[in-house]
Amino acid sequence: MSTNLDGRGTVSLATYLFTRLRQLGVRAVHMSYPSYNPIYAFNGHARVKGISALFTQYGVGELNALNAVAGAYVEYSPMVHIVGCPARKTYRVGGVVQHSLGDGKLRVHANIWKHYTVAQAALFNPMTAIELIDQTLQACVQESRPVYLEMPSDMVTVAVQEEPLATPLHLSPLTNDQEIEDEVLETVLNHIYASKQPYVLVDGLAASDQIVDEVNRFASTTGFPTLSYTFGGGIVDGSLPNYHGIDAGKFGTLDFTPYTSTADLCLLFSPFLTNVNMQSYTNIPPKCITISFGRKVIGVGYAGTLSLYVKSVLRKLLDKIDTSRLPNVQKALSPPDYSAPIYQDTFNLRLSSHFRPKDVIICANATPLPGGRGFVLPLDVTLIINSSIWLSIGHMLPAAQGVALAQRELNTGGRTILFEGDGSFQVSAQELSTVIKHKLDAYIFLINNSRYTYERMLHGEDQEYKDVARWNYLMTLEMMGAPRKGEGDYTVDTYDVSTWGDLMPTLEDSKFWDGKGPKMVNVRMDLMDMAKRFKPVLKMQGDLLRADPGLE
Amino acid sequence: MSTNLDGRGTVSLATYLFTRLRQLGVRAVHMSYPSYNPIYAFNGHARVKGISALFTQYGVGELNALNAVAGAYVEYSPMVHIVGCPARKTYRVGGVVQHSLGDGKLRVHANIWKHYTVAQAALFNPMTAIELIDQTLQACVQESRPVYLEMPSDMVTVAVQEEPLATPLHLSPLTNDQEIEDEVLETVLNHIYASKQPYVLVDGLAASDQIVDEVNRFASTTGFPTLSYTFGGGIVDGSLPNYHGIDAGKFGTLDFTPYTSTADLCLLFSPFLTNVNMQSYTNIPPKCITISFGRKVIGVGYAGTLSLYVKSVLRKLLDKIDTSRLPNVQKALSPPDYSAPIYQDTFNLRLSSHFRPKDVIICANATPLPGGRGFVLPLDVTLIINSSIWLSIGHMLPAAQGVALAQRELNTGGRTILFEGDGSFQVSAQELSTVIKHKLDAYIFLINNSRYTYERMLHGEDQEYKDVARWNYLMTLEMMGAPRKGEGDYTVDTYDVSTWGDLMPTLEDSKFWDGKGPKMVNVRMDLMDMAKRFKPVLKMQGDLLRADPGLE
Repeated sequence: MSTNLDGRGTVSLATYLFTRLRQLGVRAVHMSYPSYNPIYAFNGHARVKGISALFTQYGVGELNALNAVAGAYVEYSPMVHIVGCPARKTYRVGGVVQHSLGDGKLRVHANIWKHYTVAQAALFNPMTAIELIDQTLQACVQESRPVYLEMPSDMVTVAVQEEPLATPLHLSPLTNDQEIEDEVLETVLNHIYASKQPYVLVDGLAASDQIVDEVNRFASTTGFPTLSYTFGGGIVDGSLPNYHGIDAGKFGTLDFTPYTSTADLCLLFSPFLTNVNMQSYTNIPPKCITISFGRKVIGVGYAGTLSLYVKSVLRKLLDKIDTSRLPNVQKALSPPDYSAPIYQDTFNLRLSSHFRPKDVIICANATPLPGGRGFVLPLDVTLIINSSIWLSIGHMLPAAQGVALAQRELNTGGRTILFEGDGSFQVSAQELSTVIKHKLDAYIFLINNSRYTYERMLHGEDQEYKDVARWNYLMTLEMMGAPRKGEGDYTVDTYDVSTWGDLMPTLEDSKFWDGKGPKMVNVRMDLMDMAKRFKPVLKMQGDLLRADPGLE
Repeated sequence: MSTNLDGRGTVSLATYLFTRLRQLGVRAVHMSYPSYNPIYAFNGHARVKGISALFTQYGVGELNALNAVAGAYVEYSPMVHIVGCPARKTYRVGGVVQHSLGDGKLRVHANIWKHYTVAQAALFNPMTAIELIDQTLQACVQESRPVYLEMPSDMVTVAVQEEPLATPLHLSPLTNDQEIEDEVLETVLNHIYASKQPYVLVDGLAASDQIVDEVNRFASTTGFPTLSYTFGGGIVDGSLPNYHGIDAGKFGTLDFTPYTSTADLCLLFSPFLTNVNMQSYTNIPPKCITISFGRKVIGVGYAGTLSLYVKSVLRKLLDKIDTSRLPNVQKALSPPDYSAPIYQDTFNLRLSSHFRPKDVIICANATPLPGGRGFVLPLDVTLIINSSIWLSIGHMLPAAQGVALAQRELNTGGRTILFEGDGSFQVSAQELSTVIKHKLDAYIFLINNSRYTYERMLHGEDQEYKDVARWNYLMTLEMMGAPRKGEGDYTVDTYDVSTWGDLMPTLEDSKFWDGKGPKMVNVRMDLMDMAKRFKPVLKMQGDLLRADPGLE
């Protein structure tokens, strides 16, 4: 801090920005130098910490980030993407500089981000820069989506007013017209009181809609049978007696359709109705029994019709609800059947018993993702089954690195546990190097079925190009410079298992679960193994594809 | 092929497209499944084969390709980028499908490509699809830049006319107004005949301008001292007695400024005058002595003023030139000084003697790139110092994979020789897995200085974040499943060297140069080593940066 001519304090624009980020809870900025994987790390970090910041280089760096940031945009993850740009005079003269298109048009890259972020700030003018920063960061938090900041190199040290930093950004939830809100609540409550077989269905946008607490209180207060969609896994407290797990229609580990197909009310929170999340639209409740609560829109059906901020509505709903008028339905669901003999199913169930509060569980796309539905989660375990629509392979190992960093910062004793596919591991394996370099702690269970099993189920089991190259996966850590056993206090452990006989002694060893260092388990599974009840949905999709390629 | 109702032959749209690609010389289509690295491979392939084709998946795949294709666009490399899209009806109904933005707007991704490709074809209409394909491929070849094709999944098998395939695409060079061309030629020839100290300066766009043959004939016919810019390395036949190598001003292995600074004519072919290529604009000839020949524009100065197709102009220039009227300047340059003791310089010079005709030499960005200026290339060796402006780290290992595949297809005995940095290797190491999977042959010299030396020179030697994680690089091949020595006829060789005593026996072993299998040499160099004469240019840039950050 310094003092300018009229006696007021100034700070550099960079300090202003980073102070604002710190006020929002950001403690680390991921840099995309040199690879694109750190952007996924930053995504993982954001999912745990609420908001993250990423710094990339003009052109080559930011374009590598596009896929990952687009995924965050699509799935409502808040991120601040700062791009280090050429100096302003380079823009003025249209310089032919590195990482540009060579035609003097230097804002082409920036213009693309209008389609993949919810707000953009071009910090070219010292008079407006801090206002732009404040507006953009506000949009990031309130919309829970990525934003984009262009920082020309000669703006970094420009002096700006320090005084606005004394006032935190205005981020409180937005309020509704009281009269409309009361009318809507009356209608909703009447539906609830009149119902005989209601259930609660929670989807993944509840986190970005910031109603996780309200949804859990609603489920707990009403005692209604509560399910999640795949994308919503981990939102509802797993220890609630009326929470029954993931609703994957007839394709889940548990089949809830005997109850849901005859229900007369579905309260649908934060829906994100993609083809993947909906199991090709097979597990969606009828419109006429559904009341949906979106971030800004509420009503009968899937999309809602009335513009209201959901957080305010839910808080008042919880205040007003008269529990004596609720139907009694707690025991309406059939008991779980855990006798499934298929390998990946058994694996997921057995692993679940080792999860602890504050753990973060991360499931890669493809087979680990549907497998993750079989987890039985204790209270306060976060499950990041990230993707219901973007589904970018290679995302989750770097994301786990970001989560591990967030866990260290939060220091709650929570562990980072990744279930990774062999195919996706090969996409972004070098991010293990970052884990080692920063001495982070993480579990990596590699679900090794030697191929893109998910894709084979979809496109045909005999497609050679869907084979994964045969790596010696457990060598990766040493290759990337990890210390050997006995060299210092940060050491890696590796395990190669193909039977329960191999794996059980490890799982039963309390030292294994101490959460220290990277622990990598190569779990060799059958070539075509995946969650038992998920096979039919993929086979069905594959058959439809072959009959009508237009469906993909 | 089948026959339709009016008796004419039809083929599927996919067959039509792939037949056209085959007619253009494409023999392999790279798929971006699952990673972004194959796009760089495809770039390498294109540089050797002239044109390549890439297939990616809608959304996640194509956005990962953006950085690499943007680099090809900027640096005039012809590529056909085909994106496998959802079916047309998904677009009509605005479906919320995987890899989309979830808002029903399915063409957002496609619209971005207008900025990074020279032509785009949305193959949604069977009536116009083949015409669009033909136009787009023609643009790709004639402009020597990437094009973009959207292929909805239900268009793949649509039947189209086969008959147009009988006529190859019209790709012959475009011709000029004869009168204007003759006038210009007279002026150019008068300047040449009147000059006393002329030289020829060749830049990298000569390849995409398709005038490599004409430029070489011009250099050979006139005998004028001939130099290349960094980006133009490998264009001029290294065995020409009047070709003297790369002009890096005062910062090259050889300093040509005693001659060039007093020259009275510079014939500049295919200029691409970026800040990097021009050594921060220090090695550019004065405008008043320069006649530049761009693809479509010719004239005095750097950019030219007259719209003429250069290939036609050069062919007529070679016909008309009267060699008896040329100044005799063959011996005007000072002899080379090869006594530089610095390691990377010595290394490059010694390695050069092992290059053979048809070899392709690939230099990664950062230290190998300026180091590559020191190579002395025999006839018919291609040097891919790719980047003069895009400079995306991690590009060259996958590019080498693409080159190795092209070498196998061409079957000339030429080898693929990569000089890779340790930092860039970590970005895209998994592409070695593709080399192994397809049993390709390649040399990988890893210039291992434990850090981003280039960046340290630029930003300060003490910047910890510029350190590269310490990998055991030579384990990579085994980790990725390469067979060990003695297991079958495809085996890898690895070498760990830090002195000439380690390296010389290997270089002198003819078996080492047999070109079989992957051979990886970990060359441990001094932390801050790089081409001797390149150090000052980076130091200068770094000093300027610290004094005025606006210059980056």
